[in-house]
Amino acid sequence: MSVLRSERRPGAYYDSIVLMQLQSALAAEPGVSAAGVVMATEANLALLESTGLRPAGAATVPDDLLVAVRADTEAAGDDALARLDSLLDRRRASAADASAGHEEDYRPRSLETAVRMLPEASWVLISVPGRYAAGVAKRALDLDRNVFLYSDNVDLDDEVALKRRARSLGLTVMGPDCGTAIVGGVGLGFANRVRRGGVGLIGASGTGLQAITSGIHTLGAGVSHALGTGGRDLKQEVGAVTALQGLDLLARDSRTEVIVLVSKPPAASVATRLLGAALETGKPVVVDFIGYPPPGRQLGNLHFATGLGDAARLAVDLLDSSTEGRKAPAESSGARGLLRGLFAGGTLAFEALQGLRAFLPGVYSNVAIEGVEPLDDPTRSRGHTILDLGEDEFTIGRLHPMMDQTLRLARLRQETADPEVSTILLDVVLGHGSHTDPAAELAPVIEEILERRKRLEIVVIVVGTEEDPQDLEAQTERLSQAGARVFSDTSEAVAHALRRHQAASEELPRVDPAALAAPLAAINVGLESFHASLLAQEARAVQVDWRPPAGGDRKLMAILDKMRGTDTDWMRRESTP
Amino acid sequence: MSVLRSERRPGAYYDSIVLMQLQSALAAEPGVSAAGVVMATEANLALLESTGLRPAGAATVPDDLLVAVRADTEAAGDDALARLDSLLDRRRASAADASAGHEEDYRPRSLETAVRMLPEASWVLISVPGRYAAGVAKRALDLDRNVFLYSDNVDLDDEVALKRRARSLGLTVMGPDCGTAIVGGVGLGFANRVRRGGVGLIGASGTGLQAITSGIHTLGAGVSHALGTGGRDLKQEVGAVTALQGLDLLARDSRTEVIVLVSKPPAASVATRLLGAALETGKPVVVDFIGYPPPGRQLGNLHFATGLGDAARLAVDLLDSSTEGRKAPAESSGARGLLRGLFAGGTLAFEALQGLRAFLPGVYSNVAIEGVEPLDDPTRSRGHTILDLGEDEFTIGRLHPMMDQTLRLARLRQETADPEVSTILLDVVLGHGSHTDPAAELAPVIEEILERRKRLEIVVIVVGTEEDPQDLEAQTERLSQAGARVFSDTSEAVAHALRRHQAASEELPRVDPAALAAPLAAINVGLESFHASLLAQEARAVQVDWRPPAGGDRKLMAILDKMRGTDTDWMRRESTP
Repeated sequence: MSVLRSERRPGAYYDSIVLMQLQSALAAEPGVSAAGVVMATEANLALLESTGLRPAGAATVPDDLLVAVRADTEAAGDDALARLDSLLDRRRASAADASAGHEEDYRPRSLETAVRMLPEASWVLISVPGRYAAGVAKRALDLDRNVFLYSDNVDLDDEVALKRRARSLGLTVMGPDCGTAIVGGVGLGFANRVRRGGVGLIGASGTGLQAITSGIHTLGAGVSHALGTGGRDLKQEVGAVTALQGLDLLARDSRTEVIVLVSKPPAASVATRLLGAALETGKPVVVDFIGYPPPGRQLGNLHFATGLGDAARLAVDLLDSSTEGRKAPAESSGARGLLRGLFAGGTLAFEALQGLRAFLPGVYSNVAIEGVEPLDDPTRSRGHTILDLGEDEFTIGRLHPMMDQTLRLARLRQETADPEVSTILLDVVLGHGSHTDPAAELAPVIEEILERRKRLEIVVIVVGTEEDPQDLEAQTERLSQAGARVFSDTSEAVAHALRRHQAASEELPRVDPAALAAPLAAINVGLESFHASLLAQEARAVQVDWRPPAGGDRKLMAILDKMRGTDTDWMRRESTP
Repeated sequence: MSVLRSERRPGAYYDSIVLMQLQSALAAEPGVSAAGVVMATEANLALLESTGLRPAGAATVPDDLLVAVRADTEAAGDDALARLDSLLDRRRASAADASAGHEEDYRPRSLETAVRMLPEASWVLISVPGRYAAGVAKRALDLDRNVFLYSDNVDLDDEVALKRRARSLGLTVMGPDCGTAIVGGVGLGFANRVRRGGVGLIGASGTGLQAITSGIHTLGAGVSHALGTGGRDLKQEVGAVTALQGLDLLARDSRTEVIVLVSKPPAASVATRLLGAALETGKPVVVDFIGYPPPGRQLGNLHFATGLGDAARLAVDLLDSSTEGRKAPAESSGARGLLRGLFAGGTLAFEALQGLRAFLPGVYSNVAIEGVEPLDDPTRSRGHTILDLGEDEFTIGRLHPMMDQTLRLARLRQETADPEVSTILLDVVLGHGSHTDPAAELAPVIEEILERRKRLEIVVIVVGTEEDPQDLEAQTERLSQAGARVFSDTSEAVAHALRRHQAASEELPRVDPAALAAPLAAINVGLESFHASLLAQEARAVQVDWRPPAGGDRKLMAILDKMRGTDTDWMRRESTP
């Protein structure tokens, strides 16, 4: 029969890696068959339970260290527990050995001292437990350093406050819950070793970023920088502060030729802003919003990938293609006003909506589609409107608009009578069964309208082949001569139309490009393995010997903060919009 | 001053093209400035209103013909209206001229006669008004003909009944609201002229099919057949009867090398069945569910396109690639049971879910994603379960599973103790910061489990580069030697895992391949322009001189149907599940 012996140390904080090493060391003690060394969280207690190591009546207190050993005899168990402190000392000594030869045999206790030791450090890596993390990040910003915040379980309010603070200071905060980044060739947190090259990445998803950077390397190309944002950056509340900063940084970075933007599905309004900013970078951008219906394979300089492997391949393909081969970025023409689409083809209307709703807020339609406002009265347009004139409400007792354009021509005059309307989208579908000469009817009306409205743009999508009875070339030419811009692909037409309706980009206080400068130097607060990784990558790094302030006592912490003038009340204030 | 004169003819039915021609002819009469000839629907009256042609107090009666002319004098208006019947006669005479020289100077009044005149006709094209269309389609099925149903405004119940009836007879119904198809090189309804070739298409979207077939032609390739389904075929109630028949027809068609499946987003349960059937065709299938988040760029033999232009390019690329270059179809291994995924990487879990939920019903997860059931208790799996072990509930007070696999190893034993579980999905993410040798911990446990569970499959996704400190090759080899199937791409791993969990395909009564045989012969009931198109394409065709039964009187129609034994009650019966 074996016995279970345990010890609880209230408020004792240890790095999780230290706990794992302690656990292995205890399990190797004589007469011990199994050991558990954990912070007493609910999940950890459940794990101890499942391995028969949970002491009877053990309560959940996340700040308590709980040590349990299963031993052959009570004496063996007690001996093992008594070795706890000496095992800890031994581990500390070996950590000091490991960093011997590096610049810092001495580990500072405070961030301020660390900054004095390594003034060129532009980043502070933080991986302390969540409830302490915002305070440390705040101090790092006050010391004019960018923050890589690995810690999870950080309040959303704190995230919002930290990111606004950073933005106002020309700094950036990656995270919280930012697992990975590569800055100037050096991996922070979890990161694969990849060659340097022309692809710059922004990821609201940790392993997404790792899978794509690994993929790019495997395909023979390389990475300039990979910037993490944390999983909540694209939520409405946060508003993609870090991702927008990242786009701006990579747009200005001379090493970055192609940008990749990867995340789980963003909030709709955030997606709109982010895609708008991506359009304006002037570089090809591969977008992989996993699980978000892509608005097309390509829209201007944006290329939509479906899947991490696909994103890596697309990025490398774009890198390989000559500069001339790339689509010019969609430059905003500065024109504003409303867009109106009058479609005969239902699927073309649907595809156009799919593209427009991703970029424009306030799109209306008689086609039911998520993210698009329904039109109460289909006879009257509102805001940007896309109409499918082949829907039942328009076709009962009348020919389909692919045969009879009477209704569409009337609507075209109606829409263009509104001076707010600046762009018209139309489709012309050729082939058997359709109108025998649609351009002959449309062109005179287009000419007449453009005569009256010089700055109006009429964009026409023509679907057909040169074998079609209507003569594709003649139809296209007739429409062009009338002044319409003719495309054969909905996505291209939509990208063209969007140029006139893209909202002006906000002027962001920019992040100092020094954030991306190599060689990277950084200060690490938290997991020692991240410090070891930095050293292994030949980056200069200082490890802070961090302990929970006031032994983790919340009341005492608040008093200490106030005394030091580092209270975190500003975070609450700044997070109020 | 001009005057408005009008005439209403209750219950008078005319083909919409006839109305359009009448309208042009009336407007050309002396002293007439504008004319409107419409069925008195609400939309048409609104159109007359907008052009100043709506007679005061005109009521909405969709069965009534309404003729309005604006003339210089009352006399000119009355003269024009008096010409109505002679204009109609003149039009009839010219229609007879147009078809002179073709086999059928005589136009049968009934479908039965038409079938006797052209017994080789395997299709009946129907474009009569919606409320008559189901009855005509039913008679066509009874006469053993496939149906192309262009008419819209057909009841959903009637659609369900017609399609079930057709299926039980080895026939198919394209539509209702089916705008386009190409069968044996001949376009039905609206269709572009495209060369014949190796791409077969199925479209629940009319102009979608036209845009892709035109795109394929423009890229230099060709089309075997393009089968329309109607816009509601992929709704839950209809269950994709026509699309599933189409997949089966094209899978067996020797001319078809690559299949394209295009539609607006299908109902989730229908998507699952359809994608499952597509996996089993044994041919490359390009899927473009516009607006539906694709589960990946490629899964087995399925290739997901985003956009109509992209679908055309993908199909042509697949046609060009050698047979060896194509991925083998995911053959079902026949194994069943449950799938469990234990992920360290959140985005990899998300991407795997994205793929699995599209194919498997009843997937559970602790990751919030549409179409996936939430797991009440993350410590216990249900059905097919994908766990992200990096979520907060698993990481408070513990290292991330990319560093500490204790919890995952315990969970792996727990999952595989359940004899229902037949497949395990794992990820291993290498790189700085991660566990220094994950395979060394995982491999022995995998070996031990596979020793006990010989038919279990363990699939591992390894993310990393050959420069990573853990040695990618050694890690992969260690896992393979332990018996795991190792992949570097989530989509490939998911496609492999799906092979074991794909539901058995239903045995469908198959459609006679004669439906696709060339040369095509067809009977047209409704729009004369469709008949003219068939003749222009050198297909053999008979036009039925259709009139609404009983002059459109509903009560009388029902009595007539009963007397003829062609009542449509069976449709109501058959549409009840």
